[in-house]
Amino acid sequence: MDFDNTARTELNELGEFGLIKHLTQHIELQQPSTIKGVGDDAAVIDNANLQTIITTDMLVEGVHFDLSYVPLKHLGYKSVVVNLSDVYAMNAEPRQIVVSIAISNRFGLEAVEELYAGMLLACKKYKVDLVGGDTTSSLSGLVISITAIGAAKPEDLVYRNGAKEGNLVCVSGDLGGAYMGLQLLEREKAVFKENPKLQPDLEGKDYILERQLKPEARKDVVELLKNLGIKPTAMIDISDGLSSELLHLCTQSETGIELYEDKIPIDPQTFETAREFNLDPTLCALSGGEDYELLFTVDLKDYDKLKNQMDITIIGHITAKEKGYLMVAKAGTVHELTAQGWNALLKKP
Amino acid sequence: MDFDNTARTELNELGEFGLIKHLTQHIELQQPSTIKGVGDDAAVIDNANLQTIITTDMLVEGVHFDLSYVPLKHLGYKSVVVNLSDVYAMNAEPRQIVVSIAISNRFGLEAVEELYAGMLLACKKYKVDLVGGDTTSSLSGLVISITAIGAAKPEDLVYRNGAKEGNLVCVSGDLGGAYMGLQLLEREKAVFKENPKLQPDLEGKDYILERQLKPEARKDVVELLKNLGIKPTAMIDISDGLSSELLHLCTQSETGIELYEDKIPIDPQTFETAREFNLDPTLCALSGGEDYELLFTVDLKDYDKLKNQMDITIIGHITAKEKGYLMVAKAGTVHELTAQGWNALLKKP
Repeated sequence: MDFDNTARTELNELGEFGLIKHLTQHIELQQPSTIKGVGDDAAVIDNANLQTIITTDMLVEGVHFDLSYVPLKHLGYKSVVVNLSDVYAMNAEPRQIVVSIAISNRFGLEAVEELYAGMLLACKKYKVDLVGGDTTSSLSGLVISITAIGAAKPEDLVYRNGAKEGNLVCVSGDLGGAYMGLQLLEREKAVFKENPKLQPDLEGKDYILERQLKPEARKDVVELLKNLGIKPTAMIDISDGLSSELLHLCTQSETGIELYEDKIPIDPQTFETAREFNLDPTLCALSGGEDYELLFTVDLKDYDKLKNQMDITIIGHITAKEKGYLMVAKAGTVHELTAQGWNALLKKP
Repeated sequence: MDFDNTARTELNELGEFGLIKHLTQHIELQQPSTIKGVGDDAAVIDNANLQTIITTDMLVEGVHFDLSYVPLKHLGYKSVVVNLSDVYAMNAEPRQIVVSIAISNRFGLEAVEELYAGMLLACKKYKVDLVGGDTTSSLSGLVISITAIGAAKPEDLVYRNGAKEGNLVCVSGDLGGAYMGLQLLEREKAVFKENPKLQPDLEGKDYILERQLKPEARKDVVELLKNLGIKPTAMIDISDGLSSELLHLCTQSETGIELYEDKIPIDPQTFETAREFNLDPTLCALSGGEDYELLFTVDLKDYDKLKNQMDITIIGHITAKEKGYLMVAKAGTVHELTAQGWNALLKKP
């Protein structure tokens, strides 16, 4: 299950500048706004009269990913996607990224190439330019830090603080899948440790594995909303779990929320796997995290435009602040929503 | 010599969001262009008709810094300054930064506060806004990744590739000091390990210690050149050592260089300390690194404006590519310049 290190070029043979040259030779710039990419003290971006959007994320081996079951190419892809997701959550268009990686000498050139190939694949898919970065050594493990830069017209930006009483609460796609994919990979890793001869049992679990290993950012949802003529009143991406993000959005908007459990979109594969693991599927959706779906609020007048959109689900509505954060359960009972979102400082891989 | 951990609040008591809230409460935005700072999916920056400059740097414990003699506040300050230096090297103005840190539970809240205090001090001094970031745990050690965002009019930008035959090669300040400061700290650490009762002998070494522990970015030089009406033809900051940066500049400009050893500015304290350590002061200046001075080329017509500037030294001139990279030594002998700049992938603290 480990990354194959048989073909191996030592990184210190190349040196820092050799490595950077080698890794950046396949970068193809796609954005007209990219004036200068890799190769100077800094990148230069022309933004005309748009506003610049900046977001950054750091991924640490052993905390955010486990290389015993995460292929490096997938890791590279995912590390770009999670950053782009934050830019889409502003209703903006990501255009450039800068990438810093710290790597121990446990990794050879081929490993770093895989990581980079995944990053460039994501860049190509989302039409984003990799314009700079830093490559350095670490004493142990791999650390990836990515900053994404986007652009938007000021009037198009959507913040977290614009939700209003009576707004509909919507979510794209389905939730909890990435978390169940992680549970599955962890279980198979434990089985493998006990008996390395056993093959991992991942049959019929493609969807949740892909949700965990190769998530996508919802560029399509941002485009769909634009085409429908809908500007959300508030938006956030779901990285830490639905409940945590709902609380962020409501706190910043100074509102309450009423969420309907039976409306939360959960894929059948997620549901079944949660049952296999004796987990409550709703809890997985509320607090699993890493779904990278978009959670947003819209004015009631947009209901007709949204009601037949297959990939968007209305899961509740915004209430007055005094009403608090509530979930109406399937049984009709009412529960208080708490921030069960993953806490990155406590999270174990 | 270690950081005092007696007052200690555990980071996992606060959680990720609590920590971010705590650390970011003292941020005061200073830039009119900062529309939205910390607190949403991304920061928003208004750049009017300027171009956006982006640069990023990653600092890894045990590779780039040693906490047994680097105070965390200084580390925070330096980690910001090294990024700003790259923006100034584009002849641009840094305006915002985003900061990601990965920290092990070896550090308490007070330690992270010190680090942050140093970062915010640099922000205040250079009038830069901290607008976002990511805070996460690491299994061992501290990793800091900073991305700086700047702005410039397109016509003001200075790249590495604009040097022309006959241009004067100039450098600000003096070189080799940061490297000698590091040698001194390493020596005293070794002495301390042998005999913890001995006090470190750092008397009369303030200047080189400050060069290593609290470097400044040359904002003043960028302003000076502007006031003198000089636009450099090429510019780069000296992070890896003079020779390495000269080769970058000449390679990208497709030129040669003739450097005069006796013109290289070296502070008397740097010179004497190098002698104490049986090191060649010129070699320290050429390959020591971490000086964060600006290396730039100007047209010959600017000579009169520059010749009386105390803080700028003309160290050579640009030649045709075929002439190669040469240094005329004090003895009159001619040597080939090689990239003796620090290689971050090999560098040991």
